[in-house]
Amino acid sequence: MIKRYKYGAVIQTDAVVLELDETVGAVAFLGQYDETAQEFRYRLDAEDLVYGLGENVRGINKRGWLYESRCLDDPHHLETSNSLYASHNFFMISGTETFGVFMDYPGIVSFDVGYTNRNELVIHPEDSNFDLYIIEGKNTTDIVMQFRSLIGRSYIPPKWAFGYQQSRWGYMTAEDVREVVSQHRENHIPLDSVYMDIDYMERYKDFTVDEERFPDFKAFVEEMKAEHIHLVPIIDAGVKVEAGYPVYEEGVEHGYFCKNADGTDFVAGVWPGRVHFPDVLNPDARKWFGHGYKFLLDQGIDGFWNDMNEPSLFYSEEHFNEVLDSIGEFKGKNLDLEAFSTFTSMVDGLANNRDDYKRFYHKINGEMVRHDRVHNLFGYNMTRAAGEAFEEFEPDKRILMFSRSSYTGMHRYGGIWMGDNMSWWGHILMNYKMLPSLNMMGLLYSGCDVGGFSGNTTEDLVMRWIEAAIFTPLMRNHSSMGTRDQEVYRFEQLDTFKKLIECRYALVPYIYSEFMKAALTDTMYFQPMSFIYTEDEQAKEVEDQLMVGESIMSAPIYTQNATGRYVYLPEEMLLIRMRSCDDYDTEIMEAGHHYVKAGTDEMIFFLRKNHIFPIGSKAESIAELDDSKVKLITFQDQDVTYDLYDDDGYSTDYDLERDITTVKISKNGTCTVTGSRNLEVTVEMY
Amino acid sequence: MIKRYKYGAVIQTDAVVLELDETVGAVAFLGQYDETAQEFRYRLDAEDLVYGLGENVRGINKRGWLYESRCLDDPHHLETSNSLYASHNFFMISGTETFGVFMDYPGIVSFDVGYTNRNELVIHPEDSNFDLYIIEGKNTTDIVMQFRSLIGRSYIPPKWAFGYQQSRWGYMTAEDVREVVSQHRENHIPLDSVYMDIDYMERYKDFTVDEERFPDFKAFVEEMKAEHIHLVPIIDAGVKVEAGYPVYEEGVEHGYFCKNADGTDFVAGVWPGRVHFPDVLNPDARKWFGHGYKFLLDQGIDGFWNDMNEPSLFYSEEHFNEVLDSIGEFKGKNLDLEAFSTFTSMVDGLANNRDDYKRFYHKINGEMVRHDRVHNLFGYNMTRAAGEAFEEFEPDKRILMFSRSSYTGMHRYGGIWMGDNMSWWGHILMNYKMLPSLNMMGLLYSGCDVGGFSGNTTEDLVMRWIEAAIFTPLMRNHSSMGTRDQEVYRFEQLDTFKKLIECRYALVPYIYSEFMKAALTDTMYFQPMSFIYTEDEQAKEVEDQLMVGESIMSAPIYTQNATGRYVYLPEEMLLIRMRSCDDYDTEIMEAGHHYVKAGTDEMIFFLRKNHIFPIGSKAESIAELDDSKVKLITFQDQDVTYDLYDDDGYSTDYDLERDITTVKISKNGTCTVTGSRNLEVTVEMY
Repeated sequence: MIKRYKYGAVIQTDAVVLELDETVGAVAFLGQYDETAQEFRYRLDAEDLVYGLGENVRGINKRGWLYESRCLDDPHHLETSNSLYASHNFFMISGTETFGVFMDYPGIVSFDVGYTNRNELVIHPEDSNFDLYIIEGKNTTDIVMQFRSLIGRSYIPPKWAFGYQQSRWGYMTAEDVREVVSQHRENHIPLDSVYMDIDYMERYKDFTVDEERFPDFKAFVEEMKAEHIHLVPIIDAGVKVEAGYPVYEEGVEHGYFCKNADGTDFVAGVWPGRVHFPDVLNPDARKWFGHGYKFLLDQGIDGFWNDMNEPSLFYSEEHFNEVLDSIGEFKGKNLDLEAFSTFTSMVDGLANNRDDYKRFYHKINGEMVRHDRVHNLFGYNMTRAAGEAFEEFEPDKRILMFSRSSYTGMHRYGGIWMGDNMSWWGHILMNYKMLPSLNMMGLLYSGCDVGGFSGNTTEDLVMRWIEAAIFTPLMRNHSSMGTRDQEVYRFEQLDTFKKLIECRYALVPYIYSEFMKAALTDTMYFQPMSFIYTEDEQAKEVEDQLMVGESIMSAPIYTQNATGRYVYLPEEMLLIRMRSCDDYDTEIMEAGHHYVKAGTDEMIFFLRKNHIFPIGSKAESIAELDDSKVKLITFQDQDVTYDLYDDDGYSTDYDLERDITTVKISKNGTCTVTGSRNLEVTVEMY
Repeated sequence: MIKRYKYGAVIQTDAVVLELDETVGAVAFLGQYDETAQEFRYRLDAEDLVYGLGENVRGINKRGWLYESRCLDDPHHLETSNSLYASHNFFMISGTETFGVFMDYPGIVSFDVGYTNRNELVIHPEDSNFDLYIIEGKNTTDIVMQFRSLIGRSYIPPKWAFGYQQSRWGYMTAEDVREVVSQHRENHIPLDSVYMDIDYMERYKDFTVDEERFPDFKAFVEEMKAEHIHLVPIIDAGVKVEAGYPVYEEGVEHGYFCKNADGTDFVAGVWPGRVHFPDVLNPDARKWFGHGYKFLLDQGIDGFWNDMNEPSLFYSEEHFNEVLDSIGEFKGKNLDLEAFSTFTSMVDGLANNRDDYKRFYHKINGEMVRHDRVHNLFGYNMTRAAGEAFEEFEPDKRILMFSRSSYTGMHRYGGIWMGDNMSWWGHILMNYKMLPSLNMMGLLYSGCDVGGFSGNTTEDLVMRWIEAAIFTPLMRNHSSMGTRDQEVYRFEQLDTFKKLIECRYALVPYIYSEFMKAALTDTMYFQPMSFIYTEDEQAKEVEDQLMVGESIMSAPIYTQNATGRYVYLPEEMLLIRMRSCDDYDTEIMEAGHHYVKAGTDEMIFFLRKNHIFPIGSKAESIAELDDSKVKLITFQDQDVTYDLYDDDGYSTDYDLERDITTVKISKNGTCTVTGSRNLEVTVEMY
């Protein structure tokens, strides 16, 4: 049951798709809102767990830190970070009382989850205009389903987006891209797409392609498609200020850019230098910006990633000039601690300055609304611009789309990636822990930069990260300019990388099936163990294992020089230790704590008892995947069934009933297949 | 057996205390030095472990990263950091071949330990003038002992320095310090010292005390001593440029400061603004700077910490002016990616700029030596300056001394702390893993900032960190200005903190005994498990448990919201789960993998079979410690003995034979005590 409470003059976010009547009076569970302090306070019991808040640092259990919903381009994802790129104001308490809270509020809001006082949760929005939803349910799974039905169906990407993907900031020319592709194809390392970072554009201008470095782009897109490679260009939030550049000129002409208080167009500095921000909160401007993607769709592009849409701001022109003026005053002075701190913090404070977000305005329903009041909606609406355009131009086709920034609601238009992580072992785990939290928000198509974006990687880190990401819907190796090359062919153990990535393709029948079922039934693909094993006290503490779909428990190795790890099994399970799709060993392991060995070239995961795990065979791209046969691995002492979902992978015509093939394996090993597909199955029973 | 090889014109570092004849020809194990590439290359076998390199990030096993010995004040201790504050050029290979390598070289040197090629180790100094020592031994323990005898006996602090210590950048006045002390004393939280960060000085001038904020300092020192509190002031490397300030004027007059190429005094910017660096590599200048400490010794001070001695350099005056001139040119320009990067990297590049370290010179044996060639010796020689002065002024008394920067050799004059860590759970483990590596270098008196220096801490983090540091010789809670207060009395669970810190005092009889034996016999206090359980394959991979002295294995909990952890026992051991010094439970656990529960208020460690663990009782300061009686916890199936070391704790008159009391517990529980001390013992046998 969902109750809606309304406070003040709510700014419409379009986060939810259901219209609920307003409930009046004290808020269920949270009690009275303190108008003066602008906060809800809730007493946490010692055993209470707190789930949610989407993209954030720290644990699956969010207790013990202060989180702030304030979309922020800060590349340092540290334990002490309070904000990342996205804002997801939904959380659940699970313990003495079990309920969910969604604060639908587009401004900045903080969640003090036992940080200041270890047994107190405090929700503090910057002003008192918000919708608050309280969700009662029988458990966390139920609450998530209700929340998801409230916010609408998750975005579904094309099936090829479940293949292995390669990216790097620094593929400067078509030749660079060809080299990446041919290295994969010649070495038979599977690959489905290559990303085009900011380098493909003409001086970082949205909806342009540099013709010198990418001549005859349409033909190039075709050439790549012939190799089963999809090119995925980046789109940035800021539009370059440049006379003669049509996007700029149109935006100015129609008043589609964010404004200063005086009505002039606000100037920020990003990749191209001076830019204007398209006012994607204004429906007309949003439609116009969305139409920009057509330029690339028309050249055969079928996937995009939206970046810098917090929006990231290296500086505002006004502030930058103020700083330059002040800097001159330091000349010849003795810069002691205080003066030097002032100097460096002036420069450090240029980027993403809170005050700069108060300098510009959006036009919402004819009214000028200062940006900071709706800050968290920008990335969402940029991606919505694209999504609405795709529905208009390609209504029957799935277009790959994911964004860096987001707010609840955006999950209907795209996925997210977890932004600019680092080549740290610690970030394997940090990103892994975000997965179930993102799923709660409806962000099913997501993943992180495998191998790490910033900093120099190592061969073993890339290998372990590939293993850790083997079930992640978005599985993209991405890195920053200026760092060590990390395409897998750069390393010594090419054959091992090839085999591991082949495994990914063999797992796609399961991954895709579970993903689609989660998307079409508002459920989760990645779940904390405690959501399944609700009565298991130990499961509540496990932060480095996840349930993946209905059959699998994942347990990646994320420490350097380790050849094994500890695993907790809440029940008897089948260990699968995989080196390649046809080289793996298995072992039935009893419930409890185990130390499980796995060399760098091996990954481990577990099959739940009385569940079926379908695996396919290797392929060099999703297009070449043979989906006509699967092997069913089972570990059972009773009759079991599995619903295998598959479809054409490209169209938006989903039908859960039509597209499911049900396999049933009886206790004695007899297998029956029902459904409209011709599916050849073999059974491997334990 | 130690062999010495000499290359080029060696700059004397005084790292070693033994004069060894030169060996000629190809280097044992490493083979030929490649003069052109300036490197040694060594092929690592898959099973080889690499230990050493002192203060560095990553594992106890250093494989898989690139380390650079280049003393650096970088407060971000990240997985991808290559350098921290110290330079320790000793490492060991343990595997197919087992040997130690010490490159005695004062310039910058890199150690590529399987980073570029996972099975290759490359040592690359910046020039080819160095002494190389190759140590053969029967195992890592033996090699460490030989290395330690080569470099001389480790520094020994006064016994009070094993108590609990409190620090914070921001104790501005004597009143602030009094408040810290009274909070501890009134709440009966044990405490032995309070640190005075840069705030106590008059405008950050070395060897001054701000008389307004710390009036009648000598009386204040006395007042604190009466409460069994030692005040420990910081000393910085840079001497403020200020007419009338005697230290500055003397230094200029005698030419004791580092020079520019033109012979004028080099100007750097640090806390006080413009400073000169004392040329501590010049023996006359070193002696003069060391005499500076007398100003504080004379006021009753008996402990110091040396900081900013990499030397840290916020800017050089020359470079800063260049940058200011260039910044003006950005005005009015369109700052795109390239231009904005240039702008920000100009400012970011001000601090600790590699080129600035080429701007100044030391006078060594009458010759001018450019700083970068001897960069890593600065912190060492600043601390040596103090150490030599202490020997001169207080020959019979131990003075607490530890430094941020160091090079091998400095361990004879002081310990180190691990610099400006962060309030991250990950840093508990990072700092913990450094302990055995530091011990290998002879740095026995060391520890990290408990609770974390930078960033905001949490109550549970401070609590778990105290538990993790319970055996660390230097146990100091320290934090930065601008962060959340983290003295333990700031939190809710005061009684739990009190009990845990009381445990520390009860453990001091063991800690001090093991520390002193390690110092006086050139052995290690903290050891990797693999040094003891040399044949145990699993032990080689354990990175989060340490052997502490001869009886204990430590296994701290370092993850948030965890109420237990996995532990590997190479043999049967006795678990001790401690809540306070008289409230603990024990359990004999068999060899193998275990999951062990421990709530936030409990710490766990293990007693080795057939070893004795002496524990004392609580006290509010080391001075009040009752060292006349101990309880002996044993877990034995044969006769066992333990040598308990104790002494007056203050004088430099050490005598291992005289100061040891031997306790022997027979299989049937009979205990005999031999030695000159009157020691009352009780036995608790398992």
